[in-house]
Amino acid sequence: MSLALVIPDRKLGALVEKLQALLPGVLVQQWPDYSAPEQVQMAVVWKQPAGSLVALSELKSLQSFGAGVDNILSDPDLPDLPLARIVDPHLTQSMLGYLDSVLGYYQQRLDLFIQQQQQQQWKPKSPRNIRHLCVLGLGELGAAAASHFAALGYQVSGWSRSEKHLAGVQCYAGEQGFASAVALADLVVCLLPLTAETTDFLNSDRLALLKPGAILVNVARGAVLDDSALLAALGSGHLQAACLDVFRQEPLPATDPYWSHPAVLVTPHCSAVTNVDTAVAQIAENYRRTLNGLPLLHLVDKARGY
Amino acid sequence: MSLALVIPDRKLGALVEKLQALLPGVLVQQWPDYSAPEQVQMAVVWKQPAGSLVALSELKSLQSFGAGVDNILSDPDLPDLPLARIVDPHLTQSMLGYLDSVLGYYQQRLDLFIQQQQQQQWKPKSPRNIRHLCVLGLGELGAAAASHFAALGYQVSGWSRSEKHLAGVQCYAGEQGFASAVALADLVVCLLPLTAETTDFLNSDRLALLKPGAILVNVARGAVLDDSALLAALGSGHLQAACLDVFRQEPLPATDPYWSHPAVLVTPHCSAVTNVDTAVAQIAENYRRTLNGLPLLHLVDKARGY
Ligand SMILES: NC(=O)c1ccc[n+]([C@@H]2O[C@H](COP(=O)([O-])OP(=O)(O)OC[C@H]3O[C@@H](n4cnc5c(N)ncnc54)[C@H](OP(=O)(O)O)[C@@H]3O)[C@@H](O)[C@H]2O)c1
Ligand SMILES: NC(=O)c1ccc[n+]([C@@H]2O[C@H](COP(=O)([O-])OP(=O)(O)OC[C@H]3O[C@@H](n4cnc5c(N)ncnc54)[C@H](OP(=O)(O)O)[C@@H]3O)[C@@H](O)[C@H]2O)c1
Repeated sequence: MSLALVIPDRKLGALVEKLQALLPGVLVQQWPDYSAPEQVQMAVVWKQPAGSLVALSELKSLQSFGAGVDNILSDPDLPDLPLARIVDPHLTQSMLGYLDSVLGYYQQRLDLFIQQQQQQQWKPKSPRNIRHLCVLGLGELGAAAASHFAALGYQVSGWSRSEKHLAGVQCYAGEQGFASAVALADLVVCLLPLTAETTDFLNSDRLALLKPGAILVNVARGAVLDDSALLAALGSGHLQAACLDVFRQEPLPATDPYWSHPAVLVTPHCSAVTNVDTAVAQIAENYRRTLNGLPLLHLVDKARGY
Repeated sequence: MSLALVIPDRKLGALVEKLQALLPGVLVQQWPDYSAPEQVQMAVVWKQPAGSLVALSELKSLQSFGAGVDNILSDPDLPDLPLARIVDPHLTQSMLGYLDSVLGYYQQRLDLFIQQQQQQQWKPKSPRNIRHLCVLGLGELGAAAASHFAALGYQVSGWSRSEKHLAGVQCYAGEQGFASAVALADLVVCLLPLTAETTDFLNSDRLALLKPGAILVNVARGAVLDDSALLAALGSGHLQAACLDVFRQEPLPATDPYWSHPAVLVTPHCSAVTNVDTAVAQIAENYRRTLNGLPLLHLVDKARGY
């Protein structure tokens, strides 16, 4: 009985320890130092290197170590096995905390005051009147964000592929619903997964549908957004500001124009990070389900890409 | 029947209009252009110039246009009349909005990420763990802030001159209570009025009682804080950061070290501004009380200074 962790560039000591505590007797192996690859039934993967799963000849299932799976599905050698993603209340909470902070930052014009401070300018200004928020993507994170904002008293619209019903949220679906979803929003949060369909989804045509002066927050994946379209929309003043936590290339290259753009806030992909303490329970449960031939919790639809 | 507005440097059109709507038949005069100064029973004052009230020979009462009254009491020519301050739910709400935004800003380390962006540095970091907040001053604004934070689930301590009882808030009073109030706080909000007793109150001895690494937010008055003590505490690393909305001299002079201090966020005295729409009702009510010889609402104790 064994489980493999294929998670490069991360310290895994705590994860190994907690998995062993929850799954006594199960050998936890770590790529690239598999000791008994043929014993592995499930692999926990995140940005797995090409070929890293090939040696796991008896593999039955895959567990993403995060909510997004685009980095896993992009592996050309990915075995055709069930794949689950993480659904972790702590991850959701940390995303809501990030969004609340960013909303408050713009509401209170801290962006403007920080610029004024740099220029030694004293120009009092009343808060921005951000009343209407739109959330693109109403999955685990997007639905939680939309409901959270609605509970705080904002007018909230949301958009997804299939139509949703969320208390206090005006839900729209499909390509024709997009324009209605964003039309009135002072601030738009992108929480769409990166798939073939959503790559470059926020292009110049779609950004043009946002309300003039809107603020865009991308906490999904960098490639959902067409960067030159965003730069053009900021340049023309159609969009007022953007807060970006995710980028096409991460770390953001030194030459990227976002670094020095006065209307862009760059955060280093930290809006929501999988919490080992809470995520480990789901991983252990999916390992048990794998052993017992039961369907995994929080399965990904690989054809859809999320 | 007349009411005077002695509020320099502000556009007063909306205030005049709304007062006239609430007080039909009452002449609203504006300093310096009094048409009938001897008819004025009440003056609404804010940073009134020395001597500006002398001509109002029949004045019966004074109404501050803000919550603080230090700028009014500092007038050596101030007539010895009852003085009321504004208590305005909109002012309180805007202070809470400001404090929430600043808390979120530090919680999510936006201060750090903005610095990293300026240096093109990509260094993800998890949020600050701000759990315990302390509010200095538990009056109209301080008590509202402390209760608000407690309702959000923070551990909250508060400090005032006389002992208070607020649900969910550990209240301390008097000089000996100060050390206990601030000892465990990750972030300390100053909402003390500026009086003879509180001038330079936050000096190096008292800042030394804050928890190492604490963050200070001053939204009260600049002179409550000893600026060189704060700069020393930031320089030594005893305090981690400071957010300052108020300053000894406003606008903050171009030579002030706060402008370029990497650990200081400067906002231009905008955390809470009296809202004409909502404050006007209290002003009208106090005018009626003045005419009828009734005690004013929200009277200031001039001996105490707040
Ligand atoms: N920045 C970070 O630190 C961080 C952390 C975690 C996650 N993320 C990102 O956030 C994304 C969203 O997470 P999640 O857990 O909420 O995802 P999810 O549960 O898979 O939900 C995805 C949502 O997007 C909608 N959607 C997908 N494709 C669409 C399309 N072509 N048109 C319209 N709507 C579409 C889905 O619609 P249906 O409901 O109709 O299927 C669903 O509502 C993740 O994929 C990940 O990339 C970022
Ligand atoms: N930045 C802005 O935009 C802005 C806007 C509005 C107000 N303010 C400032 O905020 C201040 C506070 O407003 P507020 O309406 O809450 O004032 P308040 O109702 O007068 O309350 C003052 C509080 O401070 C306490 N206090 C006064 N002197 C003290 C001392 N020597 N030691 C300990 N505690 C003392 C009082 O204690 P007791 O309860 O025991 O009397 C009271 O709890 C105002 O005075 C104003 O300067 C700033």
